[in-house]
Parts: sequence; C-alpha cells; structure tokens
Amino acid sequence: MSTFAKVTPAHIEALKAIVGEAYVFTDEENIEKYAHDETEDLHFPPEVVLKPATTGEVSRIMKLCNEALLPVTPRGGGTGLSGGALAQHGGVLLSTERLNKIIEIDERNLQVTTEPGVITQVLQDAVREKGLFYPPDPSSRGTCFIGGNIAENSGGPKAVKYGVVKDYVLNLELVLPNGEVIWTGANVLKNATGYNLTQLVVGSEGTLGIVTKIVLRLIPLPKHDLLMLVPFNSAEFACAAVSAIFRAGYTPSALEFMERDALLWVTQFVDSSMVKIDDEVQAHLLIEVDGNHPDMLFQEMEAIAAVVMEFGCGEILFADSHQQKEELWKLRRRVAEAVKSNSIYKEEDTVVPRAELPLLLNGVKAIGERYGFKSVCYGHAGDGNLHVNIIKGDMTEEAWNGTLKDGIREIFELVKRLGGTISGEHGIGLVQKDYMEIIFSKQQMLLMKQIKQVFDPNNILNTGKIFD
Amino acid sequence: MSTFAKVTPAHIEALKAIVGEAYVFTDEENIEKYAHDETEDLHFPPEVVLKPATTGEVSRIMKLCNEALLPVTPRGGGTGLSGGALAQHGGVLLSTERLNKIIEIDERNLQVTTEPGVITQVLQDAVREKGLFYPPDPSSRGTCFIGGNIAENSGGPKAVKYGVVKDYVLNLELVLPNGEVIWTGANVLKNATGYNLTQLVVGSEGTLGIVTKIVLRLIPLPKHDLLMLVPFNSAEFACAAVSAIFRAGYTPSALEFMERDALLWVTQFVDSSMVKIDDEVQAHLLIEVDGNHPDMLFQEMEAIAAVVMEFGCGEILFADSHQQKEELWKLRRRVAEAVKSNSIYKEEDTVVPRAELPLLLNGVKAIGERYGFKSVCYGHAGDGNLHVNIIKGDMTEEAWNGTLKDGIREIFELVKRLGGTISGEHGIGLVQKDYMEIIFSKQQMLLMKQIKQVFDPNNILNTGKIFD
Repeated sequence: MSTFAKVTPAHIEALKAIVGEAYVFTDEENIEKYAHDETEDLHFPPEVVLKPATTGEVSRIMKLCNEALLPVTPRGGGTGLSGGALAQHGGVLLSTERLNKIIEIDERNLQVTTEPGVITQVLQDAVREKGLFYPPDPSSRGTCFIGGNIAENSGGPKAVKYGVVKDYVLNLELVLPNGEVIWTGANVLKNATGYNLTQLVVGSEGTLGIVTKIVLRLIPLPKHDLLMLVPFNSAEFACAAVSAIFRAGYTPSALEFMERDALLWVTQFVDSSMVKIDDEVQAHLLIEVDGNHPDMLFQEMEAIAAVVMEFGCGEILFADSHQQKEELWKLRRRVAEAVKSNSIYKEEDTVVPRAELPLLLNGVKAIGERYGFKSVCYGHAGDGNLHVNIIKGDMTEEAWNGTLKDGIREIFELVKRLGGTISGEHGIGLVQKDYMEIIFSKQQMLLMKQIKQVFDPNNILNTGKIFD
Repeated sequence: MSTFAKVTPAHIEALKAIVGEAYVFTDEENIEKYAHDETEDLHFPPEVVLKPATTGEVSRIMKLCNEALLPVTPRGGGTGLSGGALAQHGGVLLSTERLNKIIEIDERNLQVTTEPGVITQVLQDAVREKGLFYPPDPSSRGTCFIGGNIAENSGGPKAVKYGVVKDYVLNLELVLPNGEVIWTGANVLKNATGYNLTQLVVGSEGTLGIVTKIVLRLIPLPKHDLLMLVPFNSAEFACAAVSAIFRAGYTPSALEFMERDALLWVTQFVDSSMVKIDDEVQAHLLIEVDGNHPDMLFQEMEAIAAVVMEFGCGEILFADSHQQKEELWKLRRRVAEAVKSNSIYKEEDTVVPRAELPLLLNGVKAIGERYGFKSVCYGHAGDGNLHVNIIKGDMTEEAWNGTLKDGIREIFELVKRLGGTISGEHGIGLVQKDYMEIIFSKQQMLLMKQIKQVFDPNNILNTGKIFD
C-alpha cells in the first residue's frame, strides 16, 4: 500500500500555476459532484478537482503529483459502473472534460484523431456526417467520454458484429505518471513493431497513464438496418437461439437479450405502450441486421426469424419505421436506469462463450434461489455478455451486505467454469477486485502488478483499482 | 547484455530426461537445419535442438534453462523474415513442431483451440471443413506454424477485410521463462478484466513466454468470392486507386499491389502464361471480394471496377474459374520466392496509413535513386503495408553492406513521417532492431525493456530480438 501525501495549499498554488486558477476546484459543491459515478452507492471525495486543457498541462500535473506522492484519479464522463473514476485515496481528481476537441476526421484514411473528453455520441455523430462509422457505443453514449471507453474497453450492442473499443484503437498519446508523453503505436492497421503498448493501455482503467489523444479507425457507414423484437416463453430457449443464429451463418449487428422483468420495468419506467408483454413471455431477443442492400437484409432477417421460430418464439414484432426502431432501442438502452429506479441492486458484468449462455442463466437463477436473491438479467447475448442485476427487494441488510458476497462469488466461479470471465465491458475498478483471484492465479496477478510498477513506480495513478 | 552459460553434457542429460532421448539433437545436420530461417543470409547455430511434445515438458525445459542461465530460442515453422527464430546466442533451440495437435474445433462457440506447431493452412482447412473461417494467412501458410503467426502478429492478404492475427486470438496458454504456466485471458469475445496480457503476447516475437495453446475465434465461411487483376501504367495511380475504393464505401476481401517487376518475375519464375504484361504497364492491383450472395458480389466488383477506371487502369482480367483464381493467387503468393531467386535482396516491411501509399512508393524510388539501388515493391496495399525489396543487382559490396543502411534509414524516416511504422507483419527480430529508435523514443523503449524484464528477469528467452 502506498503512503500518499495530502494536498497542501502550496500544491494548490503550484497546480493553479499549471492549469489556471479557474480550473482548480476545492469547493464543497465540486468536490461532492466528483465524489461519485454511476456505480451503486460509492462515495469518495477528492481533495482537489483539476480540469486541464492540454497534454502539456496534464504532463506537468503528473510530474508534480509523482514527485509529491499525491494520488491522481483520472475521470471521463463519470458514467462508470465499477468505480474506476473514484478518488478512493482522496488527492487529485483529474477531469478530462476540457480535453474535448475532435482534432481531425481523416476521410482519406478512415481515421479520427480525438481528445479523450469528447462524448461518445458526439464523436459518432461527427463521423456519421462524413458517411463513416465508429461502432462501439455503451448505453451511456450520450454522456460517457471516449476516453472512459478506452479505459474500460467498452462494448455496447454493436460489438457482436463490429467488435469492441480495442478493435478500433490504432494509437494513443499517453502521459505517463512521471509526466513523460509517449505515443503507444502508429496510425496503421497492421503493426509488428515491438510490444503492443496500445492494447496494454486499452482496458487498463486509467492505471498506467492518462490518455490525451486517441486515433481510431473508422469503417464505412452501413446504409440500412432492420430491427425485430422476439418474445420467448422460456429464457433458456431465448439464450439457446442466440448461438443457433451464428451457427446458421448469420452475424446480426445487434443481438440483445432481456429477461421478462427487464423489458417490463423499462416499459413502465419510460411509459411506453409499444410492446405488449403477454403473461407467459419470459424473455425477449432484440435482433438487428445492417448492410447496404435492403433486399439482402430482408432475406437475412427472414432467415434469422426462421431460426428463432425453431426455439418456440412468440409473435415477432418487426419495427416498421424509424420511430419504432428508436423506441425499441430506447427501451433497451434505458433498462439499467429502470432497474436502478426500481430497487437497490448490484450489477455483475458476466461474460461467457456465447453457447454457454443458457447454462449461465440457469446457474444464476439456481444460485439466487439458494442465497435468497432475485435477479434481472439482460445484455449483449451475441457476445455472451450477460448483465446480472441482483435485486435487493426485501432481502435483509445482513443478507445484502453479508452472505450475498458468497452468492456473487459462486456466480463468478460458474462463469470461470464456463470458460468466461468476471467483466465483459464494465471493468474491475473498485467493486470487482476482490473476485480477481477467482479468475487469475498468483502468477498472473504478479505479472499485472509488475506491469503497473513499470509504468507507475510511485504507485500514484488510480491506485487500488483492478488490484491492491 | 546477459552472460549466458554454455550447454554442458550434464544439461543434455537433464534435457533428455525431460523430453526423451529421441527428441534432443546435437548432431551437425540438425544443428545446421535449425541455424537459419527465411531471413536473407543469417546463420546462427544453436548448441542443442529440443522437440518437446507437451506443455509440461516445455515448462520443465524453461525452469532448467532459467536456473542454468541457458539462452532459449523458440521456433515455429522457420519461415520468419526477421530472424526471430534464430539462436543468436547459441544455447537451446526449442522447436514447437511436435506440439502439433488441433485440440478442439468448437462449432457451438465458433472457436478453435490448437497447439502452436500446427501449420496455418492445415488449421484453415480443418475449420473450413466445418464451414468456418480463420482468415489470417501469410504467403508461407503452407509451411509456417500458427504459433509463429502469433509471435509475429501476422497478416496476409485477407487482413484488409478481416484483420490480422491479433484480431482472432482470444486466449493463450503461456509458459513463462521461470516455467510457470498461465492463461493470458479467457475464451470470450469481450473482456474488461485486468490488463490485456493476450494482446501483449501477440506480436512479442517469442520474447515474453512460449505459447503452448491458442484459442482463436472463427467466423462463418463466406460462400463465394470474385477476383480480378487490374493493370496500371502508373504505379502511383494504382496506389491512389486503393484508398479511393475504400472511400467509395467498398471493403474488398483482398487488395494487393504488385509493381511491374514483381508480377513479371513471378510469371517467369512459375512459368505461367496466364497474364500478359504489356510494355507500358507499371503495376497491378489484385482485388477480391467475398460474401454469400453472388449477385451482390458482381455488383460490388463492377462498382470497384468503375472506381479503378477513374485512375486510368488498363484492361481488367476477371478470373472466371476456380483454376484462374488459384493461378492468380499462386502468382501473388510466390512473388517473394521469385524475388529471392532473381537476386540477393533485403526486404523491408513498411506500413503507412493507406492513403499515404503513393507518397511512400515515390519516396522509396527517390531514395533508391540517390543511393543507387533498385527496388521491387509489392504487398497488402489495402492495409498500407508495402514490402520493399531492395535488389542488390550490380551494387558493389561496399555500397550493399555500407551506405545502403543509410538509405534504409531514410525509408524508415519517411515511413515515420507518413504516420506509419517499420514493420507491418514481419516483426523486428534481429534485422530491424537497429532502426527501432527511429520510431520509438527512449521512454518507449525503456517501457518495453522493463516489460520484458517483468516476464523474463534472467533475460534468457529469445534475448536480443526486438531490442538489445
């Protein structure tokens, strides 16, 4: 464990000299604002909040903090679900919100260079105007930052066809904890030049350096898409249909699973009347295909419909207008909020090989019965990525804060047995690090900790995230 | 620099006890066989060649060598082009040729688990029989090993649409230099669980550990493809057409560039009469599209043909049978051999953002004029990956072994200025490491060397590759 210094008035003056007085915050309102993210009920106030606007400022901040042994927590949009942007040790919170420029959309090379504080959807819309596509978009795309997406290796609904953030990152400008600035790679599609520092930094949850510029590859924007919602009377059959679709040779551009309560709650939450959920329906699949040829898409959607019918689905709802598509996607994207508004909950971001989904879902329910918790599951089924929301409901405080831990442990042990892991796209941060030893051996953990030490010998940067 | 021990008779006995007497080789013929790979004229005899058959044997070998400070060089098919599999320091050469089983083709999850000593084409054919596709295949696919492809992060002609090796590796079993065995990740499509050790190992050229099992994701096999060969009277225009195809919204499944001499030499080398090369033709593009709907492919190919015609191409040759396709691909795949048979040469594996190809090609020619060398260029133009073959021809030995280095340095400086790097898919190995400082700062090199130290504190594993 590191012994950190406390932020002194002298530090504050030095930090003001770097970023300007207007961008150094120690007032209660700001400290409070940056003391939490979207992770359940965690609360860790920093001592000071900084909003640098350039790589040079970030570099000088890091150099100062590294020498003074002040802990630094980098932060994007604050939408994280694992506590990665929380200042567990107080100290300096470094917000990237003023690093918010899209530097260049390179239409010749199908690349974009951006700062980390750009909102993901803003970036998507900007490249879309040029007929280009940056696929990874978490449900929080309207508020999360692209830099945070890099830190967590985010996914989102399109990952099933188009891959996750790591599949789009070509190169990163990184400020190291000692203040040195490097680029991690080159702006090329193929690279066999030394170790892949780019991929080491993607998903490292802001523990190895602060990303200040990002080069992403883009792809041509598909011109058309089709969307359908498929009800099933058995959640297990819905899960089984998922891998059958791929085995039949189809790759949907989205393949989302929602348990009965997920869709029911969000329908009530947003007061939507679009979907009627019959009593016997236990789960839904939301299936999208995209491409450039509408005729082909219709054929493909029909073929997929034929596959899901073999799993006893109910009446399929085809979205027949842009508005209907928007409405269905709104329902899917706001499930998390609906769950949150409904009950105290804990979300586990499990991921397994796609065909093991039915076993995972059944296992989660069986564990829930033994430990006395209800769960609402939904997520990116095409990737085998199931968000398990454990609902507090009428559980006692003792059970919620006590034995539930053992239940979660059993879920993760099941995930491991099925060839999966404990986080698909939310990261480990503060909330899952106690479970890392289920997945990793001592030797693996040692390698990771030693890599951390290579980048951050004074252990000041986002310390205590991923591992202690 | 490490001080290595020499292999003693006692070591040989201990190694025989591990892998069996039949798989320990010290005879001249075997030593000579493993003293070179496909990299120009390098020659480094090991002291002993080992052929272990299990992860356990590899682990025990590494433990012994780590404690005895014996250098270990891992080796796949020996087809490398950067000297990565050469025993520069003598010692132990560890061949993976008996780790040659495909362990499981998981049709439910579209994954394959394999040992590293499987020939890439054997693996491709095995999954193809199940209707599945593993796209990355270097020209050497008939003899290279999948383990070597992991070490070099290989590409091949399909990379332009389907990505390179790193885009298919889900998980690796890795024997560390100390003999410990770890898995680097999980068998899942999305992973936000700690540092991405998998991607750190891919492309690390056998310097961090020995890969003993590989889990790859697979995709459905496209059912149809079309192929055409397009001549241009200007190599620069051919390069310019490449990025125009993507900007028009098309993603070919292969987009290969060959300078006049590349195609001419290979046509003579394999004695093919399929292609007539007119006097004024300076370059060719080989363009493939693939997919499941023949009608769509014809439309797509016609649209691409319209794009290349805007760049003044000559008469397009459409391959109209399986045999013609095979013949055209044979020509492309054997260019390297043809160049090799034609002259002493050095191959540089340059890569730049795709649209910068014309500037790269022009720059290479201009540098060649100043330094008095001729070059034959070809490669994966869709990825911006140009193989620059510098031909000795009638250069003096002094120029070849002396000033040429400065010319190569200028090529790499140009590559850097264009946003590219010095190896796209061949790796750094022994032959490019002197040029690493063109691309990387001292701080970047330090990070890589420290990461190497984390994995290999005694510095025994493939020491001296990538960097000293």
